[in-house]
Amino acid sequence: MTEHDDRQARFERGMALLDEVSGGQGQGVMDSLADVSPELARQIVAWGFGEIYARPQLVPRDRQLVTIGILTALGGCEPQLRLHINTALNVGVEPVEIIEALLQSAGYCGFPRAINATNVAKEVFAERGLLPVEGTR
Amino acid sequence: MTEHDDRQARFERGMALLDEVSGGQGQGVMDSLADVSPELARQIVAWGFGEIYARPQLVPRDRQLVTIGILTALGGCEPQLRLHINTALNVGVEPVEIIEALLQSAGYCGFPRAINATNVAKEVFAERGLLPVEGTR
Amino acid sequence: MTEHDDRQARFERGMALLDEVSGGQGQGVMDSLADVSPELARQIVAWGFGEIYARPQLVPRDRQLVTIGILTALGGCEPQLRLHINTALNVGVEPVEIIEALLQSAGYCGFPRAINATNVAKEVFAERGLLPVEGTR
Amino acid sequence: MTEHDDRQARFERGMALLDEVSGGQGQGVMDSLADVSPELARQIVAWGFGEIYARPQLVPRDRQLVTIGILTALGGCEPQLRLHINTALNVGVEPVEIIEALLQSAGYCGFPRAINATNVAKEVFAERGLLPVEGTR
Amino acid sequence: MTEHDDRQARFERGMALLDEVSGGQGQGVMDSLADVSPELARQIVAWGFGEIYARPQLVPRDRQLVTIGILTALGGCEPQLRLHINTALNVGVEPVEIIEALLQSAGYCGFPRAINATNVAKEVFAERGLLPVEGTR
Amino acid sequence: MTEHDDRQARFERGMALLDEVSGGQGQGVMDSLADVSPELARQIVAWGFGEIYARPQLVPRDRQLVTIGILTALGGCEPQLRLHINTALNVGVEPVEIIEALLQSAGYCGFPRAINATNVAKEVFAERGLLPVEGTR
Repeated sequence: MTEHDDRQARFERGMALLDEVSGGQGQGVMDSLADVSPELARQIVAWGFGEIYARPQLVPRDRQLVTIGILTALGGCEPQLRLHINTALNVGVEPVEIIEALLQSAGYCGFPRAINATNVAKEVFAERGLLPVEGTR
Repeated sequence: MTEHDDRQARFERGMALLDEVSGGQGQGVMDSLADVSPELARQIVAWGFGEIYARPQLVPRDRQLVTIGILTALGGCEPQLRLHINTALNVGVEPVEIIEALLQSAGYCGFPRAINATNVAKEVFAERGLLPVEGTR
Repeated sequence: MTEHDDRQARFERGMALLDEVSGGQGQGVMDSLADVSPELARQIVAWGFGEIYARPQLVPRDRQLVTIGILTALGGCEPQLRLHINTALNVGVEPVEIIEALLQSAGYCGFPRAINATNVAKEVFAERGLLPVEGTR
Repeated sequence: MTEHDDRQARFERGMALLDEVSGGQGQGVMDSLADVSPELARQIVAWGFGEIYARPQLVPRDRQLVTIGILTALGGCEPQLRLHINTALNVGVEPVEIIEALLQSAGYCGFPRAINATNVAKEVFAERGLLPVEGTR
Repeated sequence: MTEHDDRQARFERGMALLDEVSGGQGQGVMDSLADVSPELARQIVAWGFGEIYARPQLVPRDRQLVTIGILTALGGCEPQLRLHINTALNVGVEPVEIIEALLQSAGYCGFPRAINATNVAKEVFAERGLLPVEGTR
Repeated sequence: MTEHDDRQARFERGMALLDEVSGGQGQGVMDSLADVSPELARQIVAWGFGEIYARPQLVPRDRQLVTIGILTALGGCEPQLRLHINTALNVGVEPVEIIEALLQSAGYCGFPRAINATNVAKEVFAERGLLPVEGTR
């Protein structure tokens, strides 16, 4: 990042990155908040993706694993989990790895949170023709 | 796992694995709960490590990233986070990657949880002579 | 509050206050719980509003800001958030202030909780013809 | 539990117990996760019920009271709460006791969580013809 | 409860009850908050105990089991958990039952919360000469 | 904010604002994370204060009320709550208003979280010679 990293540049970098990893969901994020909180949408893109996600210190695959852990533990974040499970698949996490991460989460935040997150994964996998998940046994 | 996977075998497999990834913390876990809840300690070892962690579907490195995400989001789990940051280092996660994962967590569970977890990482890194963290800039 | 502040008086004071700030939602709260937990409904009214909310030490506007912060952080409280965003509008909090409070919440409890709460605000504002929100840019 | 407590035996014991206390919901738990995470379903049954719930140190009635407290506090666990309120009724907790436990929860985790859990109880009681709840006044 | 259930009467009833179940901790609760939030202390006593806990619909033993479940799940409530584990012992919950409830909690809110709560129980039991806990095996 | 709002300018604006509202705590935030996660510290300042807090849509007083609500509900954020209670006092929130906000929080996130936050307020008030709090009765 250069020191002359202005607001518009950060936004554009974030949008390009969000589109790349999410398979083009960037505009949808902007549109859904456009008439209520455009700045929230802009910050998700410009800051969340343009400043943080864009940093090279952690590869996208690892960022998604951490994020899936956080969203599973928080609970009540099904829409965001849906986005990040899709993104995880896009950046190379295998379905069986996502499922195993959620199985492991049961020991750290309990079965209910693990089940809820697994049900979100099931919906995402169904949409992408990835059921039944191979290798979970 | 064979069908004749008895209670003692699961415990021993879990203890070997916990010792391996944590650098010999297994007995400490058992001892700390010995006079109050030996079964809780045994289940952490036999189930958490012997049954779940031992599964080959997710590599130890990835398990630690997910777990650090969960523990950061939960909050109030500093002793467990300490164990898992140590373990993450033991299985090959770089200090800069842990720090970056916690930076990313700020966007998903807020700065306070990210700061608290980073302070735990700071203590662990200090004990292991890993400060200042390289490559975080 | 007098010492002869009996159960019925507290309930009536709470109901009058709840109706005033919520635009007449008091009976709805009572009805929704009438056949399952009438005492829970009564306590929300008599204690939550009749005893706590009625205290003069904090103005209604400030109570709503604090409450919106709490409900956003908790997550999974969409019906209650809906009531309190409506109430906040009724006691003089501007839509742009609610939206800005939720933007700020992103830094303290993360984007997912902030987005979920903003979506509730969007629904409330839509019902009251307050979209698009002015001054959020 | 014998030392030759193999994987299949634990699963079968868990399934029998889950079916008994839940009124035959065991197969539904297995089926709902069959194509996405069969191991998660198996562990809920084999570990959660076969190893933990099966222990004689706490009677089923008490286990349900603790579990209802946990699920109410967590929030966002409505499907699991539904199962456990049903189970609580099956093992002898009276509707009025469940409602009173949820009223008490308001003081420890707040009214919103208490209301959400009470609404789940209302749905379960309605399905079982237990409304209006007797003795709650 | 009569309709002439005034503020002072509720407080006195709550204080008597809190003292009875906690072994005389009531004044300590009042004193600790006296110069910062006397009304918070008064409401804990008058409302939490005088109005809610005093209701006959749930026996003290059951109230403690639910409350221990809630406090374990919340996390970060060690002082309150300490009070309620003491109270649970006072109203007849056996140490082994408390420990078993916390073991069960692992499946619903994860091992870290279960361990933290078990460590609080260990401290309480140590102070009361109840270690090692009998019958936990 | 101009479009040419570069990284250094955002940081400086944030630091000036943080110092102003916190009474000069900015450098302490930077120093505490300097050798472990300088970017986390920089983002708290540059983004949290330089971009979000600096926006004119919500006055500092209101930002603090919302933030205190969030931190109370989260739990386990005592250091951050300490900073924000201090800041709230600095921007004109009266001690009695903070205490009343925390009393109100009891109804939304329960007494334990309210007590813990009130104890943090007590420490801050003690350091600033503000005990006993006037007007809380």
